[in-house]
Amino acid sequence: MTPADWIAVDWGTSNLRAWAMRADGQVLESADSSDGMGHLGRDQFEPALLKLVDPWLGPGTTRVVACGMVGSRQGWAEAPYRATPGPATADRLIKASSTDPRLDVRLIPGVKQDSPADVMRGEETQIAGYLHENNDFDGVLCLPGTHSKWVRISAREIVGFRTFLTGELFALLAKSSVLRHSVAAQGWDDAAFAAATAEAMSKPEALAARLFALRAEALLHGQKPETARAILSGLLIGAELAAARPYWLGMPVTLIGAPALTGVYAAALAAQGLAPTRADGSQMTRAGLIAAHASLREPT
Amino acid sequence: MTPADWIAVDWGTSNLRAWAMRADGQVLESADSSDGMGHLGRDQFEPALLKLVDPWLGPGTTRVVACGMVGSRQGWAEAPYRATPGPATADRLIKASSTDPRLDVRLIPGVKQDSPADVMRGEETQIAGYLHENNDFDGVLCLPGTHSKWVRISAREIVGFRTFLTGELFALLAKSSVLRHSVAAQGWDDAAFAAATAEAMSKPEALAARLFALRAEALLHGQKPETARAILSGLLIGAELAAARPYWLGMPVTLIGAPALTGVYAAALAAQGLAPTRADGSQMTRAGLIAAHASLREPT
Repeated sequence: MTPADWIAVDWGTSNLRAWAMRADGQVLESADSSDGMGHLGRDQFEPALLKLVDPWLGPGTTRVVACGMVGSRQGWAEAPYRATPGPATADRLIKASSTDPRLDVRLIPGVKQDSPADVMRGEETQIAGYLHENNDFDGVLCLPGTHSKWVRISAREIVGFRTFLTGELFALLAKSSVLRHSVAAQGWDDAAFAAATAEAMSKPEALAARLFALRAEALLHGQKPETARAILSGLLIGAELAAARPYWLGMPVTLIGAPALTGVYAAALAAQGLAPTRADGSQMTRAGLIAAHASLREPT
Repeated sequence: MTPADWIAVDWGTSNLRAWAMRADGQVLESADSSDGMGHLGRDQFEPALLKLVDPWLGPGTTRVVACGMVGSRQGWAEAPYRATPGPATADRLIKASSTDPRLDVRLIPGVKQDSPADVMRGEETQIAGYLHENNDFDGVLCLPGTHSKWVRISAREIVGFRTFLTGELFALLAKSSVLRHSVAAQGWDDAAFAAATAEAMSKPEALAARLFALRAEALLHGQKPETARAILSGLLIGAELAAARPYWLGMPVTLIGAPALTGVYAAALAAQGLAPTRADGSQMTRAGLIAAHASLREPT
């Protein structure tokens, strides 16, 4: 193939994804690996990247724009957090030193909030991508996932945000707790999910008591593991929605993430009378990386 | 040593504990191993027990009284749950078959509750032990641990109970989640625990948002991992107390468990104006096994 004009990279704790890009934002090719930054020492970042992108490099220098945990203190280079409230743009990138002269690596900074203390790395790029395509959006972005984020956007600024451990809690409880015997790895039950979400939202204080009941219902009444999976998800997402109520109540909401997950959140919010729009998380990441790349060529 | 008159056994998922007992209830000797029933196949129970108690066996048959998960469906033999409301006694034991003629193994049944669905195995023995020593207790027993139990006792009956995943959630979050980088394995902060408990009790819906803040406070403001440990414990115990409020509000409460843990719960309840009494969990287990052994010799 012809060399890439530049390379876009999403480098999280568990995975590395790269896209060979044309100057006009078209994707020429993509590649990924399990070389997440969590598995790498400081001297392994450049080799891991080269392993994926070497075929895309020309004889000169190619710019690489990366977002995610690769810019954390334990990453390739630290791209210090930008403060919020502040612009919801993916710019002011940090240069990471590399030994291969064909690489010019730039990292997108994360965003921090002093009080309540909170941080993001990676989501700021999806947010910038969404706002690049929806210039006048004013409302709330929800990015569900391992660490769900609720983000208030006004006048192209991140006004405030809050992180919930929902996805990680679900995975720990479903796979590593006593509930693993009673919760299926796949399968779903819409009605059970809706009831559990409503229950957790109306009685958030009861969550602690409801979890073990998933085990007991299986032992005593043969509750199906697919049903238990939907209930566990509903209880945890319901608890998140109860805590995030000040964010979404009466606001326009857009969900950004994997389609299956934003579908689940959309159903839960619809039950509260909201009609959230949805955007694909991977597309928003790429849009944000394109915006970040464009910012490097603009005069500052 | 002289052979034991009988043998008391506490056999949980992770551990096996045995005591060589004299007929009058005195402990002659004790032994334990990591042969929890969770690690054993059906044909490994008898060998695992013999490995511990062989030196205590005389030439005749010795009675072995056991409580815990050994009586579950995956255990040595299933001792079916007894229904609640029902007597808070550890009797109606099930005989488990053994090949060694020196053994006569009896298992204490667990207790189930149909609605809300709940089960216990092992705690019923501690409850019976406590009531054996506190005949006219009327009130609430709290047995904190991996799966904390709140149990309403009236007229020597278990009227109802509820299980909370608090201890397991704490272990998963502190050791296996993203919070592990920010939460110490040891250490404590009384004031931080008290504040977190109060916060979780007054705003139980905020729990989902408070967990990730433990990570962010460490990253942004250098929060000490010992402080984070006390806050995490306070948030989870606070959530449990909020959900268990109908149990303890205005009731006499006794805490049964490991002294360090009942101390933490006692502090949290004291902040709510309660003055709970405390009993040692291991002693109550033995008292319950003694009561169960005595029930085998009474005419029914």
